[in-house]
Amino acid sequence: MNVQEKIQGLRAAMRANGLSAYVVPGNDPHASEYMAAHWCEMQWLSGFNGEAGTVVVTMDKALLWTDSRYYLQAGIELEGTGIELMRESDVDCPSIVEWLMKHEPLTMNHEPLTGLTVGLNPEMFSVNDFRAWKEQLAEAGIEMKSIDLIKPLWTEGRPTIPQDKLYPYSADFAGETVESKLAKIRGLLEPGVRSEESGRYALIVSALDEIAWLLNIRGNDVEYNPVVISYVVLEADKCTLFVDANKLDAAAQNYLDFNNIDVQPYEAVFDYIKGLSGTVFYDGARVNEALFEAIRNQESGVRTKNIKSPILVDKAKKNTVELEGEHIAMRQDGAALTRFFKWLEEEAFMSQESGARLTEWDLMEKLHEFRAMGDNFVEESFGTIAGYQANGAIVHYAATKDNCAEVKPEGMLLLDSGGQYLDGTTDITRTIWLGGRKPEQAKLDYTYVLKGHIALATARFPRGTRGNQLDALAKQYMWAAGITFGHGTGHGVGHFLGCHEGPQNVRTDNNPTPLEIGHIVSDEPGIYRTGKWGIRTENLITVIPAKQTKEATTEDEWLAFETLTLCFYDTSLIEMSLMTDEEIDWLNAYHVRVYKEVSPLLNDDEKSYLAYKCAAIER
Amino acid sequence: MNVQEKIQGLRAAMRANGLSAYVVPGNDPHASEYMAAHWCEMQWLSGFNGEAGTVVVTMDKALLWTDSRYYLQAGIELEGTGIELMRESDVDCPSIVEWLMKHEPLTMNHEPLTGLTVGLNPEMFSVNDFRAWKEQLAEAGIEMKSIDLIKPLWTEGRPTIPQDKLYPYSADFAGETVESKLAKIRGLLEPGVRSEESGRYALIVSALDEIAWLLNIRGNDVEYNPVVISYVVLEADKCTLFVDANKLDAAAQNYLDFNNIDVQPYEAVFDYIKGLSGTVFYDGARVNEALFEAIRNQESGVRTKNIKSPILVDKAKKNTVELEGEHIAMRQDGAALTRFFKWLEEEAFMSQESGARLTEWDLMEKLHEFRAMGDNFVEESFGTIAGYQANGAIVHYAATKDNCAEVKPEGMLLLDSGGQYLDGTTDITRTIWLGGRKPEQAKLDYTYVLKGHIALATARFPRGTRGNQLDALAKQYMWAAGITFGHGTGHGVGHFLGCHEGPQNVRTDNNPTPLEIGHIVSDEPGIYRTGKWGIRTENLITVIPAKQTKEATTEDEWLAFETLTLCFYDTSLIEMSLMTDEEIDWLNAYHVRVYKEVSPLLNDDEKSYLAYKCAAIER
Repeated sequence: MNVQEKIQGLRAAMRANGLSAYVVPGNDPHASEYMAAHWCEMQWLSGFNGEAGTVVVTMDKALLWTDSRYYLQAGIELEGTGIELMRESDVDCPSIVEWLMKHEPLTMNHEPLTGLTVGLNPEMFSVNDFRAWKEQLAEAGIEMKSIDLIKPLWTEGRPTIPQDKLYPYSADFAGETVESKLAKIRGLLEPGVRSEESGRYALIVSALDEIAWLLNIRGNDVEYNPVVISYVVLEADKCTLFVDANKLDAAAQNYLDFNNIDVQPYEAVFDYIKGLSGTVFYDGARVNEALFEAIRNQESGVRTKNIKSPILVDKAKKNTVELEGEHIAMRQDGAALTRFFKWLEEEAFMSQESGARLTEWDLMEKLHEFRAMGDNFVEESFGTIAGYQANGAIVHYAATKDNCAEVKPEGMLLLDSGGQYLDGTTDITRTIWLGGRKPEQAKLDYTYVLKGHIALATARFPRGTRGNQLDALAKQYMWAAGITFGHGTGHGVGHFLGCHEGPQNVRTDNNPTPLEIGHIVSDEPGIYRTGKWGIRTENLITVIPAKQTKEATTEDEWLAFETLTLCFYDTSLIEMSLMTDEEIDWLNAYHVRVYKEVSPLLNDDEKSYLAYKCAAIER
Repeated sequence: MNVQEKIQGLRAAMRANGLSAYVVPGNDPHASEYMAAHWCEMQWLSGFNGEAGTVVVTMDKALLWTDSRYYLQAGIELEGTGIELMRESDVDCPSIVEWLMKHEPLTMNHEPLTGLTVGLNPEMFSVNDFRAWKEQLAEAGIEMKSIDLIKPLWTEGRPTIPQDKLYPYSADFAGETVESKLAKIRGLLEPGVRSEESGRYALIVSALDEIAWLLNIRGNDVEYNPVVISYVVLEADKCTLFVDANKLDAAAQNYLDFNNIDVQPYEAVFDYIKGLSGTVFYDGARVNEALFEAIRNQESGVRTKNIKSPILVDKAKKNTVELEGEHIAMRQDGAALTRFFKWLEEEAFMSQESGARLTEWDLMEKLHEFRAMGDNFVEESFGTIAGYQANGAIVHYAATKDNCAEVKPEGMLLLDSGGQYLDGTTDITRTIWLGGRKPEQAKLDYTYVLKGHIALATARFPRGTRGNQLDALAKQYMWAAGITFGHGTGHGVGHFLGCHEGPQNVRTDNNPTPLEIGHIVSDEPGIYRTGKWGIRTENLITVIPAKQTKEATTEDEWLAFETLTLCFYDTSLIEMSLMTDEEIDWLNAYHVRVYKEVSPLLNDDEKSYLAYKCAAIER
């Protein structure tokens, strides 16, 4: 079937079900950032292969909403499909709900329908999103109907749900046993249970990284994220993992038995939920609407309680073993990057001179190769961004083997990459100058970014402070120059889990989560000069307690950051006249530390190279 | 009646109405910051005269919740009343709702009651607060009943609603006619009205400063706030002011007639609302629950819509006439402060030497005297805070004639004051050193505060930035020293209206309001060293457009602040080694401007004094 045939098929199903519109979002049932191919319904239906987008089909129209990263790609891929591109960042682009509420597309339909009803698959929407849409659409007299019309259509060639093996993740890495984690989470839930419910309660867990953390398990079901496709229902007296049986070998089964974790088939979660009683806790931002409807449809009365997942909250606060693991992973990562940059400077262009063409893709492969040499390396934590010159200014640039720029020994290279090690997850961006005369603006841009990066890394702040309060510290110097950037300054990072995780971050948004001891966030301000270069400097930093000073006036608890990432900066790009003494001191001390921690992993040649890169700078 | 008799009377009424508890908050029906004495029910019932607090009475207990500003005062004033003090900032202090939800106080009552019902006067709660309580209490099976039990009890000696005259406020000061304002607000409401309602709509306005702004009227009903106690209902084809008739003289009546504003008695608003049809807009954060219940109880079907008040939003964005007025008021204020400080330094202690004792109260009176000399001065915009030495560290310190410290020619004085001028509202804090050896820490504290104050005043930021994003700029230097403060860094300021107004501010809270051109906020970081001194430095600043720089990478619109306040800082308290060249340049340029703008209002002696105070500082 081509796209037009698929849409015709969908319309026939809509007609049969009395639907005026059908919505296919780019989500999976687990609110995942990276999705298994099985759930790429939006991509299958539309032919658009970007990672973010939502398709809306009515009887006479089909539209795809996506964000600015994908306008170019969507424009090409949607050609000939009859699907209209809706550019979300355009000022006059209505939201999907606004568009639906205008009715027009529904009443323009020439065939009579039984009222205005929008269909969607409740597995693909979080409870909160679904309820918010429902409330808004109700204002315009539009109903929402939970129905999966894609499953009966997408019968040929649909990838199965990944069947990779689940494996136990040792408490030696995790720093806490499953027993301890289950007891802790139960202890957090119990005060929310009413006494007259005689202690019956359940927590529905559907986010894959939360399940992996809670049960100390890992898997290979999703690229870049070592998770296992599954659900968990945690009750006072048992914990049930819903997972396909063929993901469990004997060792895995033993591990689950040992930890008193019951196993049921993946799909059985819906029936299981219907048998719950007492208080059922769920995080409406993560749990999908289909699960919620299963709770609501069950026979015995339950009280549902929409809470912020206590697993999400606890998982974000790394324990000392996890943090020690991060340090180990960072040394591996620092060594890999040292070798990579040494190769790039000393060898890569030599082979180019002998005729070979060096591309961004070559850099991505070579960097992977160096990382893969590291102890306990499992996979990359996301697709490397190697943005040469103007490509560095494209924030979500992704070079492919067939479509990437040649890299020459001149100009700017932005390199954003990371690894999944059993010890922890890394994510680092360095921007370096490959040769040639440096434009004055390049040094200014690099230095504004570096100053902001240092200001955030060295911030001291009272407990209770949120990331959005610190965001401007990283931007103040570029703001003074009239420059800003559109992405977040910092995202949370998992421990051998998602490279992006919540609830904390450092962004402009009004995220209510305060930074807490053990949180890891990235520190990655950037400047993007279209057609010229992109500059981003990124370390991971973790929140640590800071001592009260002698000057303190209050009993506040104080926090600060410790930098985790271990890799030199390109000091040749620093405009020294903009740097304060304190910034120079910080940078020199950091370089001393990088050398001290990374050099033991290097051979003598590599050590010399690193020592040169870490040499102290002076005004 | 003493407090115990009042509470006994209240309990009898509760019993007669089947109530288990009754709540008396420190609010009025207009969500006012400063209240007319008529509405001080909480104070009347409890004998506690602080400005913030809520009394809860059950059959066997009476409790007062208040914040840390008032613990001392409440402790004294509640003695012998049987009312228990609940300290809100204590970690283990339950909120009122939490306390009520524990049931205990309700079931401990020995007399049988008809269920668990909490009574409260819906006029004294915003819709949003009332609904939030209702929802939470319902979870514990507690009902809320709207009923006013204080009115029948408080019959003797209750002050009447103020009967001061309403007066027109010229568009020469307001910068916009009533006609224009009404048209603009209607234009903002109309797109929210459904077409099938054939254009019928109404906006309920209950905040007194919103009414004053909308109708270009002022009054004297509330101390420090030139407002008129009234309600407004704005409809498509008419605007009705609900106000007591004896507040209107012939001129006021003519003015209202001329502007086609209908007048009805103050209390008639409730009946009037019952006759509305179509869409009824209200701002649930400001409109009281009694009005909302009147909307809901009306016969014809209406659609209610809880919106952020468009008047609040528009009022905050000062027009060019209002801003020019602010400049005029600031010159008056700067002249008054110059004269005051000159008097304090050159004369005040002379008279003290002749035997008179100089007190904080004397300073407050003298400052008022100097301000009152200014053109178009009406009244102070809040009670002056004159905090000498350790008293400066008490953030909401209020000296009284009978209870205030003697001021000597040594140590630190914090002076926070402001004026209501027909031209605009001022609010300024200066901290000065009166003599004697300066402790090193005093200079450090003063300089951390000053550096933060300058960092906020000189910030440049993209449009869309909120105050809470900029807050850390004002705190970063003291944070680095391990110091912080508990109050907001900046509040919005009205134009010859409330000295505190929304929706914008510069605080840590997650206020979603971005800063917009024409907003005025204060810039007032502080350091409070208990038992020693308080230091606060405050200017008013307004948001202005900033030009794109040559370095800009995006099309963002840029904003910056212009400082409005015109008064020197005490440069003798600056620790120069902490100051950057840019900060020194900014301060010197500001002092040049202060002299230039204020000196034309001064005599030669005063000019010399000001010139000396504004002398350039050098490293």
